[in-house]
Amino acid sequence: MSTDNTETTGRRRGRRPAGQDTRTALVEAARAVFAENGYEGSTVRAIAARAGVDAAMVNHWFGSKEGLFADAVLKLPFSPLELLEELRQGPDEELGQRIVRAFLTRWDGAGGDTFQALIRSVTGHEQAGTVLRDFFQKFFTKLIAALGSDQVDLRTTLAASQIIGMGMIRYVAKFEPLASTEIETMVVAVAPNVQRYLTGELGL
Amino acid sequence: MSTDNTETTGRRRGRRPAGQDTRTALVEAARAVFAENGYEGSTVRAIAARAGVDAAMVNHWFGSKEGLFADAVLKLPFSPLELLEELRQGPDEELGQRIVRAFLTRWDGAGGDTFQALIRSVTGHEQAGTVLRDFFQKFFTKLIAALGSDQVDLRTTLAASQIIGMGMIRYVAKFEPLASTEIETMVVAVAPNVQRYLTGELGL
Repeated sequence: MSTDNTETTGRRRGRRPAGQDTRTALVEAARAVFAENGYEGSTVRAIAARAGVDAAMVNHWFGSKEGLFADAVLKLPFSPLELLEELRQGPDEELGQRIVRAFLTRWDGAGGDTFQALIRSVTGHEQAGTVLRDFFQKFFTKLIAALGSDQVDLRTTLAASQIIGMGMIRYVAKFEPLASTEIETMVVAVAPNVQRYLTGELGL
Repeated sequence: MSTDNTETTGRRRGRRPAGQDTRTALVEAARAVFAENGYEGSTVRAIAARAGVDAAMVNHWFGSKEGLFADAVLKLPFSPLELLEELRQGPDEELGQRIVRAFLTRWDGAGGDTFQALIRSVTGHEQAGTVLRDFFQKFFTKLIAALGSDQVDLRTTLAASQIIGMGMIRYVAKFEPLASTEIETMVVAVAPNVQRYLTGELGL
């Protein structure tokens, strides 16, 4: 996230900080609204109204609807919009490398628990699966559509299968040696497979 | 499983069938013993003793320790030993195809809930992760070691990442079109990636 959790404004004896109250209220409202309406069906305005705060507070605390979603529901340790920008820098034929490196760097940096929390929320609640699907689908679709590949939807889900599987093995099931292999080794081993899903011949 | 749940022996009015009691006791004992000692550290003898039945009952009801594990902990809709035998039939360069086809056929046949139950048990309990790791690692290691490939351990975990990721997308997150794509289409799209992990150049 682009903002951190430090907030001193409004702190008074015996009273929780107003800023943190707003942030917490937005996270709680977002979980409820996303759970009811899914990612696409939820608006910043509706979430802010539910939280009883101004819609501008979403941008202030989370940067965007995607940032709020990442924080409140997906627990992604990064801003999806920033990641999308970063992944777009560089040759198309190295996008697989950039994707593997970017996800592992962020998940490793967050301690791996974040990925586990994400998977737990998905397996525990049907709605979270829908929400994750909408989100990942949108994210990878944007990347892959820009490459001019055919079968964008299938390639999107294939790429997601490898990225999520890599996270499952590294952070949840913790299979060695993959769980503690250096990120750059993982990039060499896994990126060609991701790249085939993005731009390679699928044989279909 | 090679045996079904039908059991009439010992059925009397007002009394649950003795066979089913034995089976249920074994499943409960297995869950406890596997959770305490992991897959490798648990013996058929110890599980049978905990259930208060003869060790021969494990073979009668579950075929083997692996079968009991699959039924009691992993909820795999197949006998791992039978699957291993089936996967060994055919050319090495088509093993990736056979693996993708075999897992999807079995998980699809079980309705997909089975995979979800497996993932839930892994994310909910640290010990189940250990148990799943031991099991999958052993299963894929047997297959890959027989191919004469280098880096068997790394290849094992890479292959597992793709198989588990495929299951996550198809049965848990349910991303379309992957969630409802025909199995043979999935084989064409995914098998070359699995095959690279089994026998291809990893670049390391």
